[in-house]
Amino acid sequence: MTTTGTRKLEPLSRGESLQLLSSVAVGRLVFTHLALPAIRPVNHVVDGDQVIIRAYVGSAIDTAVGNNTGMVVAYEADLIDPDTHLGWSVIIVGRACRVSDGAMADRYRQLLQPWIDGGGDDVIAIRADMVDGFRLIA
Amino acid sequence: MTTTGTRKLEPLSRGESLQLLSSVAVGRLVFTHLALPAIRPVNHVVDGDQVIIRAYVGSAIDTAVGNNTGMVVAYEADLIDPDTHLGWSVIIVGRACRVSDGAMADRYRQLLQPWIDGGGDDVIAIRADMVDGFRLIA
Repeated sequence: MTTTGTRKLEPLSRGESLQLLSSVAVGRLVFTHLALPAIRPVNHVVDGDQVIIRAYVGSAIDTAVGNNTGMVVAYEADLIDPDTHLGWSVIIVGRACRVSDGAMADRYRQLLQPWIDGGGDDVIAIRADMVDGFRLIA
Repeated sequence: MTTTGTRKLEPLSRGESLQLLSSVAVGRLVFTHLALPAIRPVNHVVDGDQVIIRAYVGSAIDTAVGNNTGMVVAYEADLIDPDTHLGWSVIIVGRACRVSDGAMADRYRQLLQPWIDGGGDDVIAIRADMVDGFRLIA
């Protein structure tokens, strides 16, 4: 630890944050499930100011998003080097809704293949209402 | 994507999960802040069935843990290869409390240096009440 020194947090702009988010394939969805904090790693694509993920019908994520009004979730991705302690993290908070437009959902299904066997029928869009990104710098 | 094929989720035992968690230095704390879902990447150590992190006095994490009764949080770490789609994820859910015993807190401060400049005075212990781990296998 003493060899690397401590790092400073440098805030990132909304644009930089969304660009970094789109540069990685995996992030973590944060939501509430059975009144408890829940988190699941998932793969994503970024489309404008939305993060698109896929969920299994009946899964905790799918159930949490629930009806058409959706729910407020957080989504996070980071890339932090465990040796140098340099890297970045981006957190968005916003409403997650099922993509109900069939043509749009199909387009996202083409763009975003589920990594897990057997699933991911539902397409969920998370609006980047709040974006909070930082870089760890020397 | 088609070159790797989809992966199966294989559940991990509690012991395997805690061992994997202790094999990495960084995870993500999930909590509620101002009635919104919040997530912060932090570095950690695992001590028995507790995950130890440090927080800045007055930070969102520190404020959320608040008084001596603590709060229920989730903590997640993963290592998922973006090319092969193989890896693992471990999620614990449990009560997070400030470590109030001075000698114990000092011991953890020795074990766990903050990566970020200027901080991490408070030591927080998260009890692994629920442990949920899985491996992505071919």
